[in-house]
Amino acid sequence: MMKQERAARTRQLLIRSAAEAFERHGFTRARLADISSSAGVSTGALHFHFPNKDALASTVETTAAEVLRRAAGSAGQPEANALQRLVGASHALADRLHQDVVARAGFRLSCGEGSHHPGLDLRGEWFECIRHLLTEADDDNLLAEGVSRQDAAASIAAATTGFEVLGRTDPAWLSSTSLSRFWRLVLPRLATTEALAALDLPAGESRPTASYGDFGK
Amino acid sequence: MMKQERAARTRQLLIRSAAEAFERHGFTRARLADISSSAGVSTGALHFHFPNKDALASTVETTAAEVLRRAAGSAGQPEANALQRLVGASHALADRLHQDVVARAGFRLSCGEGSHHPGLDLRGEWFECIRHLLTEADDDNLLAEGVSRQDAAASIAAATTGFEVLGRTDPAWLSSTSLSRFWRLVLPRLATTEALAALDLPAGESRPTASYGDFGK
Repeated sequence: MMKQERAARTRQLLIRSAAEAFERHGFTRARLADISSSAGVSTGALHFHFPNKDALASTVETTAAEVLRRAAGSAGQPEANALQRLVGASHALADRLHQDVVARAGFRLSCGEGSHHPGLDLRGEWFECIRHLLTEADDDNLLAEGVSRQDAAASIAAATTGFEVLGRTDPAWLSSTSLSRFWRLVLPRLATTEALAALDLPAGESRPTASYGDFGK
Repeated sequence: MMKQERAARTRQLLIRSAAEAFERHGFTRARLADISSSAGVSTGALHFHFPNKDALASTVETTAAEVLRRAAGSAGQPEANALQRLVGASHALADRLHQDVVARAGFRLSCGEGSHHPGLDLRGEWFECIRHLLTEADDDNLLAEGVSRQDAAASIAAATTGFEVLGRTDPAWLSSTSLSRFWRLVLPRLATTEALAALDLPAGESRPTASYGDFGK
């Protein structure tokens, strides 16, 4: 491996190790010595890449931001309508939070008791994405009569925040199955009959026209 | 004031002061010296009531549990139907979290990185309350055709968790107005037409039959 490649790889290992430590112990109690040893490098190597714990946290946050923006942006074909892209983006975000400890730790740091990266507000970006797509859906007459898009935006923001927070202690809340429960409840109210019929929903999110029976929590 | 009354009053002041410190600095960084001085008592007086910070946190949690159970239980007349009581309980909980720092701190401690009161699970109790009321609503044929009560329970659990968490940094999320946005979106999907018409909703939660117009976030 080239020296440069090796340095990049060490950096990635440290970011991941830091994310794991922040998730397990919280930022305050996470120890640099544990982060470097879990990454299999010396504390000297850690300090070569990151001057302190704040710098590590800031990098975890920006890495998470890139991952989440990419996921939300790539969800759904660009030609898909705004509701389709909103559902797709919510699933893509939940999937990244479910699978990727760096996304999870970065989102939590950014939304917690003070981000370590001034100017970064991952939750705010997601809410802006919800509002933007609902405005587009409204302009394209995809929202059912009598639905306020502000009500919809607040509800979707609150519910997706809930799935994220509950997923910290029970990852099942971030599964596609859990999120589908929300969309199955809300979409028939939110979308016009035509827009609902045209939606291409993930498996398990088939159009809600009949009772789903009991499939436990 | 009798000696006993004075002791009870000091205890209440300490619980409130601890709740404020936990909300401001988190449990780990909150300092006993600050808690006693904000309550206007000596550290000796604090230690007379509470041997350590864990004992204070545990008492904040049980106090919050009492407040929240009372609020949820008293919401809606006992003769009201299950959907009515569910909406009422969610508003009562949000109101307590909005107004009462002890309820807020206790809920957060109980749902956070490890409760200081083993066996207490405030979020779990609330979810059980949601499930119970939805089962009753289902048994009483209040839920619309095609609605799964598991989908409803997961969605209401996620959204109310979201309002609670978002309310920590922006109290407006815990206002009656914010929560009404969610119910206005969800109730017409959740309830039968008859059940919806019979609901006695809080002001601002008037039955959604027409567009609500723009009233901002």
